[in-house]
Amino acid sequence: MTAPIDFYFDFSSPYGYLASLVIDDLAARHGRAVAWRPILLGVVFKTTGQSPLLDQPLRGEYARRDIARAARELGAPFRLPETFPINAMAASRAFYWLAGGSAARAREFARAAFAAIFVEGCDMGPPPAVIALARAKGFDADAMAKALEEQAVKDRLRSEVEAAMARGVFGSPYVVVDGEPFWGLDHLPQVERWLATGGW
Amino acid sequence: MTAPIDFYFDFSSPYGYLASLVIDDLAARHGRAVAWRPILLGVVFKTTGQSPLLDQPLRGEYARRDIARAARELGAPFRLPETFPINAMAASRAFYWLAGGSAARAREFARAAFAAIFVEGCDMGPPPAVIALARAKGFDADAMAKALEEQAVKDRLRSEVEAAMARGVFGSPYVVVDGEPFWGLDHLPQVERWLATGGW
Repeated sequence: MTAPIDFYFDFSSPYGYLASLVIDDLAARHGRAVAWRPILLGVVFKTTGQSPLLDQPLRGEYARRDIARAARELGAPFRLPETFPINAMAASRAFYWLAGGSAARAREFARAAFAAIFVEGCDMGPPPAVIALARAKGFDADAMAKALEEQAVKDRLRSEVEAAMARGVFGSPYVVVDGEPFWGLDHLPQVERWLATGGW
Repeated sequence: MTAPIDFYFDFSSPYGYLASLVIDDLAARHGRAVAWRPILLGVVFKTTGQSPLLDQPLRGEYARRDIARAARELGAPFRLPETFPINAMAASRAFYWLAGGSAARAREFARAAFAAIFVEGCDMGPPPAVIALARAKGFDADAMAKALEEQAVKDRLRSEVEAAMARGVFGSPYVVVDGEPFWGLDHLPQVERWLATGGW
């Protein structure tokens, strides 16, 4: 089977960021590509009744510790931005707009956005921040600025989020391998065993 | 460091059951014992605002699949009881009462209770079911029946649950190694690396 595996994430998700650092290599070890698919957990949470993880009693405190520990284990730079969670809408719209031209360029942008958020600690919520990042990284920022206002671009993100939810996606990262879903950074070793063995 | 590691679980937690099958061997590989500590997630959820996992939209459906998959991966027998979640209060009280005499016997009882629930599919909620299991497994069932009515036994469980929450425990399984907390079956490999390396 050579279909890409699906990698769902929210730009505001620390676990999504950490997964983004390893998912391509993981898949490549098994001859697979990865389709990156940003979603908006805020929309999903309206269905599942969850609240943002870091705001939850007991769980939030644990998550801060767990995320930092996972980053250290991966040797990944990490900081939690002062503004958190961030609103991932503009970055996600920009991603899908770029993906319409080149999946590779969209992924490049996603990596830059994740680094801006979780390495530099920037608030990538406001559209001007997203556009400034795009400009700094050599994307066509003027075209992006226009695109972010277009209904078709807004609709694309909405339909992606709806399709993800229809598929059962409720968290970040959330990986689907040949129809088999895996939620969470801690499931990546299981994703790898699934790819290696074809499932059990 | 030779202090035991703490293993918190709810008798009604499928992930807790699966962890119970491997935690002792995992710890023993690093020269450590395990202190088993049943808790009542229902009490914890009043603080964290969580609802039972399997009842949650999207997450519940995923969890059923994830639990069955984890059981298959471990080669562990598993079924979800028809009555679920079960009320773990009587089993937990029985555990701590037994632990007052012998930690090893209490653990033996815990293994039997988990097997009754997640292998046989029994409802171990009602005290008579717990007492019948104890009798069948050679414990002093008559003494247990009396103990389950004693205020001191009830207080012991309450204080264990309160102490666990004060320590930040909010899920099952939840393992603490030298003060470092790890939540979830999927964190057991990380628990093992922590034991092997002393942390990072």
